[in-house]
Order: sequence, then structure tokens, then C-alpha cells
Amino acid sequence: MSATVAAGRTVSTEVAAEDLVALARGAAVLGTGGGGDPYVGRLLAEQALREHGPVRLVALAELPDDACVVPVAMMGAPTVMVEKTPSVELIGRTVTALTEHLGVNPTHLACIEAGGINSTIPLVAAAQLGLPLVDGDGMGRAFPELQMVLPTLSRIAATPMSIADEKGNVGVLTTIDNHWAESLARSLTIAMGCSAIISNYLMTGAQARESLVGGTLSLCRALGRRIEAVRASHGDPVAAVADELGGRVLHTGKVTDVARRTTTGFARGDAVVSGPAGELTLRFQNEHLVAALDGEILVSTPDLIILLDSDTGEPVTTEALRFGHRVSVLGAPADPRWHSPAAIELVGPRYFGYDHDPVRVCGPARTGAVGDR
Amino acid sequence: MSATVAAGRTVSTEVAAEDLVALARGAAVLGTGGGGDPYVGRLLAEQALREHGPVRLVALAELPDDACVVPVAMMGAPTVMVEKTPSVELIGRTVTALTEHLGVNPTHLACIEAGGINSTIPLVAAAQLGLPLVDGDGMGRAFPELQMVLPTLSRIAATPMSIADEKGNVGVLTTIDNHWAESLARSLTIAMGCSAIISNYLMTGAQARESLVGGTLSLCRALGRRIEAVRASHGDPVAAVADELGGRVLHTGKVTDVARRTTTGFARGDAVVSGPAGELTLRFQNEHLVAALDGEILVSTPDLIILLDSDTGEPVTTEALRFGHRVSVLGAPADPRWHSPAAIELVGPRYFGYDHDPVRVCGPARTGAVGDR
Repeated sequence: MSATVAAGRTVSTEVAAEDLVALARGAAVLGTGGGGDPYVGRLLAEQALREHGPVRLVALAELPDDACVVPVAMMGAPTVMVEKTPSVELIGRTVTALTEHLGVNPTHLACIEAGGINSTIPLVAAAQLGLPLVDGDGMGRAFPELQMVLPTLSRIAATPMSIADEKGNVGVLTTIDNHWAESLARSLTIAMGCSAIISNYLMTGAQARESLVGGTLSLCRALGRRIEAVRASHGDPVAAVADELGGRVLHTGKVTDVARRTTTGFARGDAVVSGPAGELTLRFQNEHLVAALDGEILVSTPDLIILLDSDTGEPVTTEALRFGHRVSVLGAPADPRWHSPAAIELVGPRYFGYDHDPVRVCGPARTGAVGDR
Repeated sequence: MSATVAAGRTVSTEVAAEDLVALARGAAVLGTGGGGDPYVGRLLAEQALREHGPVRLVALAELPDDACVVPVAMMGAPTVMVEKTPSVELIGRTVTALTEHLGVNPTHLACIEAGGINSTIPLVAAAQLGLPLVDGDGMGRAFPELQMVLPTLSRIAATPMSIADEKGNVGVLTTIDNHWAESLARSLTIAMGCSAIISNYLMTGAQARESLVGGTLSLCRALGRRIEAVRASHGDPVAAVADELGGRVLHTGKVTDVARRTTTGFARGDAVVSGPAGELTLRFQNEHLVAALDGEILVSTPDLIILLDSDTGEPVTTEALRFGHRVSVLGAPADPRWHSPAAIELVGPRYFGYDHDPVRVCGPARTGAVGDR
């Protein structure tokens, strides 16, 4: 995917307020259950775009080597994020806290994760600060911890990073590695009330081209639009998403059990989807990490496990999971860089305490470059 | 006490390596059980003073109005501090992290609390950075939480503050009030391994004169020397400490029970001292906060509750409390500013969850100005 982008086939585009329904829906698909309610992220971004105008999306291939790229994101438990919406102003202020600490002028903002609210938070800051946004992200999906991004594998430091809450408290952390950044920022996030805005992984344009996944925001918008179009034409939106992501439908059924707790700053738990093929158990920590059918693991992290409403194709986040919901469970391949040994150490099942190797989704190869859309 | 100092009767002096045994002992007396093992603090300060030479003590009255006074301290559970000694270099680096963030040049360092290791940590930084040290502190005793200092009552902000650990992680926090500074710094301290170095309450010389307690370091040294002298002449060191602090002996006996746990970043617990007069219960959170004899409260925070070895007069810290130790329990009056209604709200028994008003020590009035020593 990134190779295609590097070949320069992508073009700049814009995100306007009217794109946000589709973009937020697609972001929630890539969010694999985490990333928070896309509705909340959309409302925030709509407010910012209506006030400040559209945001220019810049393809990775178009980034100058010496660009100063600043990611911004929300950190915390999605269960809390939906009840404690940040202000537009707070998001921009968090970016500024980092760039002022470092004495640099940001040229572009970026998403550190594709998923739910973290695909729209950077749009908010870009609109408010009048900066273009990189069409890409640090994962190509969502993961629960701060160090779980491709830039970590490219040895880009997570810190100095800023962290701020809606009350007006701000911190700047400088840590010895990206795991310590997670640990200290997580403890601050919990003290700040289980959600905070962070800005970290500040990088050059050259580093962004090497370490980010290209085209993610365009992909989110395309996904969201396709779900809507297929639904309007009475087609199968679930099959359309599987096709768009080169994945496959793992299971269809009804949610018959949800055990969810907000603990150590995360929304953790298990859910069971009962269907004709058996009982599929989903294990999640903000994001869905393992899908097992009657005990057999079908797909696990780092590949994507996506829950969609079976009728509408709307993505279902972990905090919205409820008994009786009829859902389809999809598996889709992650960016190939997530399957290196170093990456598996960072985000593989064993890191999360599941004693097995990663199980990759078996489906048609992911076709078409995201950047072409 | 501070009035005397303000009248200009104090003079500058020096602290050299050979003063440290006395100074650390006196600091542990004012530490009222908290502040960590004075032995650890003394070793650190000895290393710094032998390497960099003596530190000049500056009386509050001699501080220029526009002095840039920077307190530095250790934060965390004394039970952990004794096992995880910071380096000399870390302490200086924490001061520099704050002053560089603010773009200011420190002219003086200061103690934010009188007690145990926090009377010697600033000496270490002063020696290393080649700066004079204010002869005073922010409490005239020790308290467990960051906002519990007289500067809070003078509306001096605890932040921006720096916080650093021995691994090399550094944070700078800016909070909306001093309670939030405690909350966020405590969570970072816990994540950093239950102890950290902090630098905060940066203030002008004029603010230092208004809000600090004068002469504390001289008092610590004088106390420590007097204990040694009285012991050498086979006198009663416990009575000598009571006399020096204008306090009185509350109880003498043997430690018959200690329940201590390191939790939420503090050393919390209860101890029982059984003697001829009955059973005295001590309740502590790093520092001793309440002393009750057979259920009757004799003294409580904000006044000082001090444990001394009955034979030697050596102060006993909460983490060193053990069954069978023969101890004397003293009460001594706190700086009068601690008895205002706002101060009682900040550090009174009810703040710590004890449902009673403060009980002041009844003894001879504290005589003699600390600054005269």
C-alpha cells in the first residue's frame, strides 16, 4: 500500500464537513471495535470544519523531507471518551504544547491511529490550527497502547509528548523509550479522568513516508461511502467492506454475552456471538484482539477483527456491544509490516497475554492501493 | 519565628560535609516519621558536598526580592526511597528541567519540606549546581502531599513543576491548581516506581520571605547537635528535643504493633506504643498524623508528632518502626500559620479521613527564634 503511495499515484484532496459521516463510519471500521464512538468524533470534526473550513489532505508522497509532522490523538478508555468529549480548542492546544516545548513550527498534522475518534481528532486540530493533514496514519488500524505504532518499529521516539485534559492540566513527558511513554502517559490519563488528548511521535516528512501507512483517511471515506451506497441499493454492505479491505466474513450471529470492564485505563472484556456456525468469542482491550469459534482461533492481532451490524453494515464499537445485536464478524489483513518478528513482539497475541502465535486471516489478497481511491 | 527572621537577626552560614550527621538527624525529628531514612539522605549529601564543597545557607531576610528560588524534593513512599536511592546528578537535572522549561536562571534553591531526606536533597542539588540554599522550608515539618505547604496558602502555584526518575524519564506538569499537581505528580511517581525527584513552587525572593518557614536547616543542625551533646553528657536527649521545639513528651513505651502498607504511593498504617500510661495509637500516612492514648486524642495534625528512641534520642521513621522498639512520643507545636481555617482545611485531621477537629499540643510556648541559632 505504502509502495503505491510512494510511487506518487496519490493526489492531494480535501476533507469537508459533508465528508464526515462517511469518514467517521470508515474510521470506526478500521478501529476494530476501539477508537471510541465515531458519532462523537464526527460531531467534533463537524464543528471544527464548519467554523474553520475544509482541511487539505496531503499524500505521503507529497510530503517534503523536512516537513514537521505532528500527530495528535485521544488516549484512554473509549467507554469514558463517549461521556467526556474534548473541546475543539483543547485538541489544538495539545499540539501547541508540544511544538512550543520543542521550539518548532508544525507544517502538517497526522493521525497516529486509524480508528474511530482518532481519525477525526487530527482533523479538528488541522482545521483549528490551519494546517494540512497527512493522508495516512501510524497503524493502518487501531491498537490500544501508545507504543503500538509502526513508527516505533522505525525507531521514532514517542516523546517528547504533550498530554492535556479538558480541565486545563497539561504535561510534557520525555521518556527513555516508547514503552515508558505508554506507562507514564497511561497513568496520567487515568489521573486525568481516563481520557486525555496527546500529541507525540513528532517526525520529519522523510520519517513519515517511511513509517506511516498511506491513504488511510481516503480509505476511511471510501469505505464509509461504499457502505452507504450498497445499503441504498439494497446490496450487502458487509460483503462490500470485506471486499474493500481484502478480508472475509468470519461469522454471523447474535451477541449473546458481553463482559466489559473499564480497568487500568482500558475497556477490556469478552463478547460471544452465537450463530448457525457456533459460538464465536471476541477478546478485546479497547480493540478486538482475538476471534475464536468454539475454541478454534480464526484470526488474531495484528490482523483486523471487525464487527458490523449485519443489516446496515454500520461498525459496532466495543463500548456499544450489547446483548441481542445481530452482527457480522470480519477478518482483514493488517499492513504487512505488522507481521515482522519485531512487530509481533510489539502487538502479537502473546503481548496481550494470549498464549498462542498470531493467526492470519485467510482470504483473498488485499487488492488495489488505498492511495488510488 | 518568621517575624524574627524578617527582622534581620539571622546571618548567612554554610553547610559542610561534617554538619550532615547532625543536620540529617534533626531533619528526621522534624520529619515526624516521614521523609525517608535520614541515613540515605546524609550519604547522598555527603557525596555531593565532598565533591563540590560546602553550600552557603541564605537566611530569608537576606533574599533579594527578585531572587529566583527553586525548591527541589523527593516524592513518594519512604518505604521505597530507602531502597531506590537517587543519583546526585538526577537531583540537579530535575531542577534544570524546570528552569529550562521556564527559561529562567535559578539564584537560590530551597527545601519545600523539613524532614528526613527532603532536607538533604536540596543540599545535593545546591552543591552540584553551585547555588546557595535558602535556610528555610515550605512547612516547618513534613506532610505527605504536594499541596500541603505554606506557599499554597499564599496562593503560590506548585506548577510548572518537573518530575524525573532514576531511569531517565522526565515530565513537566502545568496544572490548574495545587491539588491537581499532587494528583498528577502522584500518579507519575507511582508509575516511575513509587519514588521520584520533583522541582516545583518556583518563587521570587519576596514570595519566599512571605511563605516559607525561616531557619529550618539551622534548626535541624542545632537539634541534631544537641541530641548528640546531651547523649555524650549522659543527659536526657528526649527532654532536650522537647525543650528545643517547645513541645512535650506525650508517652513512653514499647512498640507492640505495626500495621504498615505501601499503597497509593504512600506508606500508610498504624502503630501501637504500649507503656505504663496505656496504649498510644499512632496513625500515619508517611508522617504521623494522630496520636491517641487509649482512644483519647492527645495531639493531631497540623502539630508535630515525633517518635524518638528513648535511650539515644534518635528519631524513628515510620518505615523503620518495628516491634519491641522502646520509644518516646513527643508533641510539638507547628508553625502558627498551620492553624488558620484555610490551613486546617488543607492539612487538618478531616482531610486525612479522621472525623475530629485538630488537637493542639499543650505545652510551653515555643521559645526562642530558630533564626537566632
